[in-house]
Amino acid sequence: MAFQFEILATDPTGARLGRLTTPLGVIDTPAFMPVGTAATVKAQTQQDLETLGAQIILANTYHLYLRPGHELVRQMGGLHKFMSWLHAILTDSGGYQIFSLSDLRKVCDEGVTFRSHIDGSEHFLSPEKALEIEMALGADLIMVLDECIEAPAEEPRAREAAARTLQWARRSRDYFGQHGNRETQMLFGIVQGGTYASLRHEHAEALVSLDFPGYAIGGLAVGESHAATCEMTAVVAAHLPQDRPRYLMGVGKPEQILDYVALGIDMMDCVLPTRSARHGCLFTSQGRLLIRNSQFAKDNRPIDESCGCAVCQRYSRAYLRHLYSSGEFLAAILNTHHNIYFYLDIMRKIRDAIGFGRLGRSRSELQERLNRQI
Amino acid sequence: MAFQFEILATDPTGARLGRLTTPLGVIDTPAFMPVGTAATVKAQTQQDLETLGAQIILANTYHLYLRPGHELVRQMGGLHKFMSWLHAILTDSGGYQIFSLSDLRKVCDEGVTFRSHIDGSEHFLSPEKALEIEMALGADLIMVLDECIEAPAEEPRAREAAARTLQWARRSRDYFGQHGNRETQMLFGIVQGGTYASLRHEHAEALVSLDFPGYAIGGLAVGESHAATCEMTAVVAAHLPQDRPRYLMGVGKPEQILDYVALGIDMMDCVLPTRSARHGCLFTSQGRLLIRNSQFAKDNRPIDESCGCAVCQRYSRAYLRHLYSSGEFLAAILNTHHNIYFYLDIMRKIRDAIGFGRLGRSRSELQERLNRQI
Repeated sequence: MAFQFEILATDPTGARLGRLTTPLGVIDTPAFMPVGTAATVKAQTQQDLETLGAQIILANTYHLYLRPGHELVRQMGGLHKFMSWLHAILTDSGGYQIFSLSDLRKVCDEGVTFRSHIDGSEHFLSPEKALEIEMALGADLIMVLDECIEAPAEEPRAREAAARTLQWARRSRDYFGQHGNRETQMLFGIVQGGTYASLRHEHAEALVSLDFPGYAIGGLAVGESHAATCEMTAVVAAHLPQDRPRYLMGVGKPEQILDYVALGIDMMDCVLPTRSARHGCLFTSQGRLLIRNSQFAKDNRPIDESCGCAVCQRYSRAYLRHLYSSGEFLAAILNTHHNIYFYLDIMRKIRDAIGFGRLGRSRSELQERLNRQI
Repeated sequence: MAFQFEILATDPTGARLGRLTTPLGVIDTPAFMPVGTAATVKAQTQQDLETLGAQIILANTYHLYLRPGHELVRQMGGLHKFMSWLHAILTDSGGYQIFSLSDLRKVCDEGVTFRSHIDGSEHFLSPEKALEIEMALGADLIMVLDECIEAPAEEPRAREAAARTLQWARRSRDYFGQHGNRETQMLFGIVQGGTYASLRHEHAEALVSLDFPGYAIGGLAVGESHAATCEMTAVVAAHLPQDRPRYLMGVGKPEQILDYVALGIDMMDCVLPTRSARHGCLFTSQGRLLIRNSQFAKDNRPIDESCGCAVCQRYSRAYLRHLYSSGEFLAAILNTHHNIYFYLDIMRKIRDAIGFGRLGRSRSELQERLNRQI
């Protein structure tokens, strides 16, 4: 078996310590996946990502399909070789970006028509086409096409989209069964259903009957309350098989990660550490720090005195503030490095805590600290 | 002696192999100094610069005076500590930037009044004030304030500016003698004189009589022909003492560097490798390469097959073209890294060739190659 998912330990909170083995290496779970939209995690070299200990990164099918094009990536030997990242990669299906970035999208049962946000050209994506693209890109973990809806959405709208997403999941499974290769790619189904518990429950059960090797939970953290995100996640997780990895898409804030882990989530991704970094928002063990603030102008301390990242070993807040104020590339480079380290370090600490069965004890204190602003 | 300059070998062309010892390390000459305008070489970390083998970088007094301010840098322990670069740094005097970047400059014998290009605020810089700023920044090699003129300039204009630059040099020497520290900073005089050989000659001789430990040649490579740059450099070099380092400011193109070295130049700086990199122009042993060109879209080769830099070891032209086309940070990071490596590697090869007395032999063939476009 090229892919294998094992649960190594569970915690009284419900958290799972696991290990997802892929052809390109092991992913320790719960895992946070840095986002590398256009085959690059913005402002980091692949060497930086290796230094940071990233075991998997995410790339966006929508962006790579439009530029440089999946056929070009295929001809260059696939995404791993193209970007020189010989570790695990996950690609989404493009669904979320079509619904959030592009104009003039028109959904029918067959698929979705949309316009490129780059040049306005018209494109059509079906579940089969999405997989064809993802197979050309060649990521290790790939996603079925799903219909993402505006939030909040009325129940009938959420029901319709969930039904279509289920149809598409079936077609995706069948297409991948015929044309895909289970030795090199692992296909995840995606649970939708808006913020309606009964719909989420139904959809999860129906999707599980299609027997995917992994399950994603989509359409959450899109504007609803954190409590609602957690409630939906709990409902879905309760109906997913214990022995398959669970990926909660597009989350989360540092202080929320623990909640998702406690709900049995194994994988997460979010642009927050990288995007915030470019806007000068730095995460620390004592809360958020906005580096542009004048209070840091003469602050010779590192971002976070308890952080072990290369940036905190070498540079001061005063210098980082100067770089940010001057609009220098190095601001984005160093801030991003620190924030990714911070996220990956949280995950390492969480995994340790699950292993020792003590995740629950330090949870609220940790969350309170992460929620502060320096 | 904290500073020491030795000539280790000379080449029949006139090139000098040397070693400039500073309190923060040795600089092998001829040296190329990457430009780190705002206390950062754009898109490179200090660790990157160390990996590249940079022994000295340049920072711009004008920019650092305006932001974050020299008093702040002084309070943070000086430029080395502020930017975490514990190797040699050279600062210019701010003169060139005042004359090229700022509005409403008004020169009188006392100094120059100018407006900030950032916020339009008015400032006054005298030779003494320039040194006060450079002493606060604390770079190892520092420059006197000179008057930079538009190019081309009529002879009377060039003569007037050279005379003022000489007055300023005398005041700078005296001010530094009273307030400076020769154990930690080495003050360079600057030869001006436009494109007038007799004026350059006169100015060099007068400046040498002021007995600076190092000499810079300014006001060249600002629009005149390469032949004129070389002619002026030769005239000046002939009148500079053999035992002092010679710094030709703001040059040059890869294929011109050898000419300057052959004229006895020991140090150079130029934004070309870094700025070109951000515009997708890459230097190779076979000539320039514009990475945006469609011919590289599916080119799996490195930028330069004979290059030993980290970028050429790992990434393809196809990927670099994708990054550049997508406006990704990583394009600037990787392109800059390669171009600086290329420049520093040329200097290493030049130093080797001088050591073996064979610089002249390979000169024209190398220049012809560097001048090509791939």
